[in-house]
Amino acid sequence: MRVDLNCDMGEGFGAYAPGNDRDLIGCVTSANIACGFHAGDPGWMRTTVALAEAHGVAVGAHPGLPDLRGFGRRTLDATPAEIRDDLVYQIGALTAFTAGKRLQHVKPHGALYAMAVRRADVAGAVADAIQAVDQRLILVVLAGSPWERWSRERGLRVAREAFADRAVDARGGLVPRGRPGSVLTDAQEVVERSLRLVIEHRVAAITGEDVEVHADTIGLHGDTPGAPALAAALKNALDRAGVDVAPLGRWLAG
Amino acid sequence: MRVDLNCDMGEGFGAYAPGNDRDLIGCVTSANIACGFHAGDPGWMRTTVALAEAHGVAVGAHPGLPDLRGFGRRTLDATPAEIRDDLVYQIGALTAFTAGKRLQHVKPHGALYAMAVRRADVAGAVADAIQAVDQRLILVVLAGSPWERWSRERGLRVAREAFADRAVDARGGLVPRGRPGSVLTDAQEVVERSLRLVIEHRVAAITGEDVEVHADTIGLHGDTPGAPALAAALKNALDRAGVDVAPLGRWLAG
Amino acid sequence: MRVDLNCDMGEGFGAYAPGNDRDLIGCVTSANIACGFHAGDPGWMRTTVALAEAHGVAVGAHPGLPDLRGFGRRTLDATPAEIRDDLVYQIGALTAFTAGKRLQHVKPHGALYAMAVRRADVAGAVADAIQAVDQRLILVVLAGSPWERWSRERGLRVAREAFADRAVDARGGLVPRGRPGSVLTDAQEVVERSLRLVIEHRVAAITGEDVEVHADTIGLHGDTPGAPALAAALKNALDRAGVDVAPLGRWLAG
Amino acid sequence: MRVDLNCDMGEGFGAYAPGNDRDLIGCVTSANIACGFHAGDPGWMRTTVALAEAHGVAVGAHPGLPDLRGFGRRTLDATPAEIRDDLVYQIGALTAFTAGKRLQHVKPHGALYAMAVRRADVAGAVADAIQAVDQRLILVVLAGSPWERWSRERGLRVAREAFADRAVDARGGLVPRGRPGSVLTDAQEVVERSLRLVIEHRVAAITGEDVEVHADTIGLHGDTPGAPALAAALKNALDRAGVDVAPLGRWLAG
Repeated sequence: MRVDLNCDMGEGFGAYAPGNDRDLIGCVTSANIACGFHAGDPGWMRTTVALAEAHGVAVGAHPGLPDLRGFGRRTLDATPAEIRDDLVYQIGALTAFTAGKRLQHVKPHGALYAMAVRRADVAGAVADAIQAVDQRLILVVLAGSPWERWSRERGLRVAREAFADRAVDARGGLVPRGRPGSVLTDAQEVVERSLRLVIEHRVAAITGEDVEVHADTIGLHGDTPGAPALAAALKNALDRAGVDVAPLGRWLAG
Repeated sequence: MRVDLNCDMGEGFGAYAPGNDRDLIGCVTSANIACGFHAGDPGWMRTTVALAEAHGVAVGAHPGLPDLRGFGRRTLDATPAEIRDDLVYQIGALTAFTAGKRLQHVKPHGALYAMAVRRADVAGAVADAIQAVDQRLILVVLAGSPWERWSRERGLRVAREAFADRAVDARGGLVPRGRPGSVLTDAQEVVERSLRLVIEHRVAAITGEDVEVHADTIGLHGDTPGAPALAAALKNALDRAGVDVAPLGRWLAG
Repeated sequence: MRVDLNCDMGEGFGAYAPGNDRDLIGCVTSANIACGFHAGDPGWMRTTVALAEAHGVAVGAHPGLPDLRGFGRRTLDATPAEIRDDLVYQIGALTAFTAGKRLQHVKPHGALYAMAVRRADVAGAVADAIQAVDQRLILVVLAGSPWERWSRERGLRVAREAFADRAVDARGGLVPRGRPGSVLTDAQEVVERSLRLVIEHRVAAITGEDVEVHADTIGLHGDTPGAPALAAALKNALDRAGVDVAPLGRWLAG
Repeated sequence: MRVDLNCDMGEGFGAYAPGNDRDLIGCVTSANIACGFHAGDPGWMRTTVALAEAHGVAVGAHPGLPDLRGFGRRTLDATPAEIRDDLVYQIGALTAFTAGKRLQHVKPHGALYAMAVRRADVAGAVADAIQAVDQRLILVVLAGSPWERWSRERGLRVAREAFADRAVDARGGLVPRGRPGSVLTDAQEVVERSLRLVIEHRVAAITGEDVEVHADTIGLHGDTPGAPALAAALKNALDRAGVDVAPLGRWLAG
């Protein structure tokens, strides 16, 4: 039994500091670092890479749409070529802060993630970018989504992600934010769901039935108020259950 | 007798195309490609790297201050740490478009170039950035400037640059733009000065006397109206004079 | 018989100059001036307002989506509140360059125009912005579109726009760019269509049949190669046909 | 005895909220609202204007240099024409959010404020902008500075500002941040200095001697941890001492 815990980090901008990075870094194994398009800037990238490395947390790129004001959460009708080039740029920029090391992974942010889940052309642009820069990079995708399939067909190293604090529908898809019950806030419930997900590969859908989900990494949301406490509780529960919580790059096939 | 000819390229932005790149690419040996801070964007970077590679022109980064509206020509009181991080970011971003190859060189743009010429802390920030990313990168500096000395003291691979179309003072420094006679527009004169510079390492100062200048690369300004014709005339004259016009990376020591 | 001729202007950015403004300004009666979000900046806004005023051309705001790199041509999933606030901001910014005069009109740019044509919530956001700033402002909308209707229902002063160089379908809607025949390039044809449109209020659809179109203003596209010559030919033909070519604000009801 | 209390507000950006606006708004009489160049955006501008109006706080523009990442704190070598145009743009943009009312005042931000204090050309650009938009606008300047004199010579309505929490030198100038003792953090001391400043027009310089300072408004720094408590203490102390704490526009001559 093995799993990675990932969290978005470095999402400050200039004088605006990122929320909870220093409180969360001790509980995760992979950091998705913002690359300047939806958040982050060269200063925060340097700081956040150093923070991750000091805690033995694996470093990945968290590229977003070019929309600082919207925090990369607004769908933008960019062409696949534009998306590919924007990803190449951001992945390259972050790589330069690792002093010659390679990145472990890439996880698109916000609206870009949501677009890749459902659009083959966007998923293809993401794959093009990774293969242009470094085809050994792990791509983090939504477990069970069309994006997972499209990415495997392209021969990418894929890590399947599930979210500990988000409700799923009967097919394992994320219930959209805004719907009642879409975000789970009870820490105990989130921890128990996560344990069952990792150990039994099953999770209860919002409609009641059990769904099979295979996840390599659990995505934590760092910008919620109780996030650090939740992350700590989850990490402890996984440790106690004998789950090996370790960065993807140490054990993922490929 | 050997020299490199370099020119700024890829300085478009979105719908705004760069000026004369396609007319100039056949006459230069090194392209300084804008990296998105003063000009350029991921799309133009991909296009311009491909253009350079198709013509056997060596690819270098042309990082600038974060000032798109001012085209990187306005001095900004950024800290050395900010300048270093901005350079690391831009160099990394461009590198990702070269499909695993390394860049040949780095040449700071506009106000950043002018700041490095005269400020040891800025020159140090540039050196820090290069050594953080890839210490084999060649740094293009103004021939004979304090910046050349500071960069050599840091152990960088340095290429000395002179400008074919700019007047120099009695100590070899550039006469500031705006002063009468600072920019030479007669093509014949520019070609003859360049030949003498490359072959005799001497150039006439604006005050009349001869100055010794050792240059590894001649910087062309692509945004002036007659630039392509001037570049072609210069390239032809150098060829006819038996000067080996070739990219820095093929012959520069270090 | 009366009509206004409008054209987008001031769509430069920093060192990038707008295309044909000086050649077109003598042939139009209303200038849609970019406000800094999709193109334009405070310097170009001042310059372009002055250019329009010197030629007796009425000044209007041409607000766009916040996407400089995409020139405001990419649909962005902004909320109606965000769109309203972005419009208020841009209209206010341009107004400040008119030395106490009011603007004549507002014409949204690019993807924002296309979104308002088909989405009631976006059209409502545009109306909210105009009523918040100055309800006497004329809103330029696509003639015959749902947007025209929604805007009238809100009590706005509406000017109906048709395009001289774009094909229309059997219901008077614009044939999307990219479809064969969507853009007319023959100057003679464009002039003749425009005359018939203004005088008979009819135009031939791409499918052959005649469509009734009532237009108060004809939109010229300034960024095409032959634009100035076409604009001059159109202006001359309208003058010769006895059509009063004058700014909307001088004659539009409301 | 009368004084205004002003504070910078609305300095958020997109998902990044401004710090203490809701805690401070009850203690000040004038709000300097960020206009999108150093901080702020259309959404925050609308929100902050509404917050100020709901508390009877006068609304002013707080324009900055175009440097979001540097929060407008880095000197930028913009030309006076660029500074003037950037100010016109920002003042106009904020005005549009006031539903037809005029702004009370303009207070430049950060590096722009510091530049205007010591450079006549920058002070002139600020004056040009105000006179272009609305010459009734009050300009907030550093009390006793050359900027105050230059602005009076231009015929502007000028409000003299002093800072409750900043040390001054023997000539009344601000001791630069970073020098030991430049920022006062003891609330009691700040309140007592402020009272003496308002009532006796005198303050102790960092070198010990008393300096005469005439201030119409006291600038509070909202981004320091104890700012709301300090503001409340200051407001209370002024009220108890019988000082009329009221917006500049209600009582300043001109």
